[in-house]
Amino acid sequence: MFRLAVKSFNSVSTRRAYSSTSAVSDRIVIAVGGNALQRRGERLTIENMLKAAADMAPTIAKLASEHEVVLTHGNGPQVGELALERSAATFDVLGAESCGQIGYVLAQAMASVGLTAAPIITQVVIDPSSPAFRNPTKFVGPVYGPKEAHALAESLGWTVKPDGEYFRRVVPSPEPLEILQVDAVKALLHHCPSVLPIACGGGGVPVMRIPSRPETLQGVEAVIDKDACGSRLAVALEADAFIILTDGGGIWQDFGKPTAQEMETVSPEYLLGTKAGKNFPGSMGPKIQAAISFVENGKPGCYAAIGDLKDAAKILTREEGTIIRKDVVGKGVVWRDRVKSAEEENKPPKIAKDPPKYG
Amino acid sequence: MFRLAVKSFNSVSTRRAYSSTSAVSDRIVIAVGGNALQRRGERLTIENMLKAAADMAPTIAKLASEHEVVLTHGNGPQVGELALERSAATFDVLGAESCGQIGYVLAQAMASVGLTAAPIITQVVIDPSSPAFRNPTKFVGPVYGPKEAHALAESLGWTVKPDGEYFRRVVPSPEPLEILQVDAVKALLHHCPSVLPIACGGGGVPVMRIPSRPETLQGVEAVIDKDACGSRLAVALEADAFIILTDGGGIWQDFGKPTAQEMETVSPEYLLGTKAGKNFPGSMGPKIQAAISFVENGKPGCYAAIGDLKDAAKILTREEGTIIRKDVVGKGVVWRDRVKSAEEENKPPKIAKDPPKYG
Repeated sequence: MFRLAVKSFNSVSTRRAYSSTSAVSDRIVIAVGGNALQRRGERLTIENMLKAAADMAPTIAKLASEHEVVLTHGNGPQVGELALERSAATFDVLGAESCGQIGYVLAQAMASVGLTAAPIITQVVIDPSSPAFRNPTKFVGPVYGPKEAHALAESLGWTVKPDGEYFRRVVPSPEPLEILQVDAVKALLHHCPSVLPIACGGGGVPVMRIPSRPETLQGVEAVIDKDACGSRLAVALEADAFIILTDGGGIWQDFGKPTAQEMETVSPEYLLGTKAGKNFPGSMGPKIQAAISFVENGKPGCYAAIGDLKDAAKILTREEGTIIRKDVVGKGVVWRDRVKSAEEENKPPKIAKDPPKYG
Repeated sequence: MFRLAVKSFNSVSTRRAYSSTSAVSDRIVIAVGGNALQRRGERLTIENMLKAAADMAPTIAKLASEHEVVLTHGNGPQVGELALERSAATFDVLGAESCGQIGYVLAQAMASVGLTAAPIITQVVIDPSSPAFRNPTKFVGPVYGPKEAHALAESLGWTVKPDGEYFRRVVPSPEPLEILQVDAVKALLHHCPSVLPIACGGGGVPVMRIPSRPETLQGVEAVIDKDACGSRLAVALEADAFIILTDGGGIWQDFGKPTAQEMETVSPEYLLGTKAGKNFPGSMGPKIQAAISFVENGKPGCYAAIGDLKDAAKILTREEGTIIRKDVVGKGVVWRDRVKSAEEENKPPKIAKDPPKYG
């Protein structure tokens, strides 16, 4: 067991704290992308999902042995696939089904490393008057060429938007307001340390309250962003940390340019004050927003982190990825210094395969 | 709050105990059929499932307000429907997806009566050398005429068997041996009284242990009987009662004949000693076997019950359905006396619409 040094650092000089040991553990919400269960270039099959889950299971199990961990996950590729096969089903129902599927796959993988997981189907209340319903933004399902995409939009009433050089279906992605099963997750964390709770899969099943009878819930055709929901879950659980694991690295500035730099630690203020402002580009945008939201609404001293799934353990020790927290000294950002040794200087720069861009 | 009189009765004379009150509550596992979410003659749609779930929600909520209740449910119609739409998926995965779907529908209905439900995707270990794999018995999906059924069997490798005057697909239904998430359910019962756990849906997701690496689980093409799994869950939770709610009534002898009688209370010995022996006919068979298994393996004084979903509250007060327990006086059976008053004598016999047959 070790105590997370990042809880108390406020300058680079505290790095030595990494080697200290303590019996205190943190409460950590870990979010993995739906893409983490589908490696790039591989077909979306249960077999491939099981392989990808098996790859990540030891990392999650190690963290769960040292901390109170709740796992959450995306469902973009999976719910899109289900939607193709079950065209009459609505996205709340498809979301719930995909959580059954993915929860099972994750639980299967965790069992193999000695950890029982309890995937909980989670209802998440949204506001039906959210502007998200007027501007669908959540990509679901496979990519299509422009002609095919527009034919599908025409015949099935889809909204489609460009994703890179292809097109994909988009559905509304409203903000998560309330997580109904949060007490169940808390009870498991407090009283069932042998079990890893999996909650808010796919951002949770989107439901709305009927205004005249607020206890009555109704399903909604939407997919909540899993990082936004994970952030909300982490706040509700009074977590110490919210870790977003991607198939890229941390947050970069000027990525791809000679001036490219990865952030080691950054404050919400710094991120919000850059030229990108609140409109973070690409798939990194929602992750950064979710991280900032957690840091701003979570318990004092909490932090968020974004990094590559394969580096999960090193993210907690600040060796990889980017930490987002309030009390960053100086200008609010510490840049990662990759050029430490002659040996490393001779290596090509360590860049994730397909890293997220920022700035 | 009332204490279940059935816990201590051993003769008809204890009926007065029903009116006594006490703060002591029982731990009860309630099993509802997949058919309870699809009323006969109605199409299997989410809308219809939601309606059926809404009908039953107040009953479940009332019981949950008085007792520690765990809900489990079947998935026969639902998993069969998913199998038709997702023909490439295996039955472990389809089972998990159906549990996501049904768990969500039940949670939606329970929310409307003020109760948060936590549906847990549950892995259940089976023995791959079980004889069940040589003799598939579990009906899944819709009914077909004989020609269509045999054509499907031929082309898709299905096993089909007659169900009444039609044919349906059957899959293996091995015995549930171990419920992986049982500690999570226990923790919720002990520490989270505001939440209704839903577990072992569809009999749980069937998995087997790899002999050389027993921690490693592998999915199995099977559907575990939900009553068999509910019985196992009730034993593991040290439940006081295991209640199987059907769309028929309790256990009848000579059903349809002038000598027809419904059992009010019956012992496992009596049931096993009748001419039907261990081979209980029709859909009632697995329910009776599950009830007997719970009574024989559960904690001292425990009981099982079988009755109509709409009578759930009256089953606990012995006004409807059949109680199965060890300590039944006399010959091991108390027959229900339906002819109590002149008024009732003039009524047609109170028989469920499509009651289960026995004996």
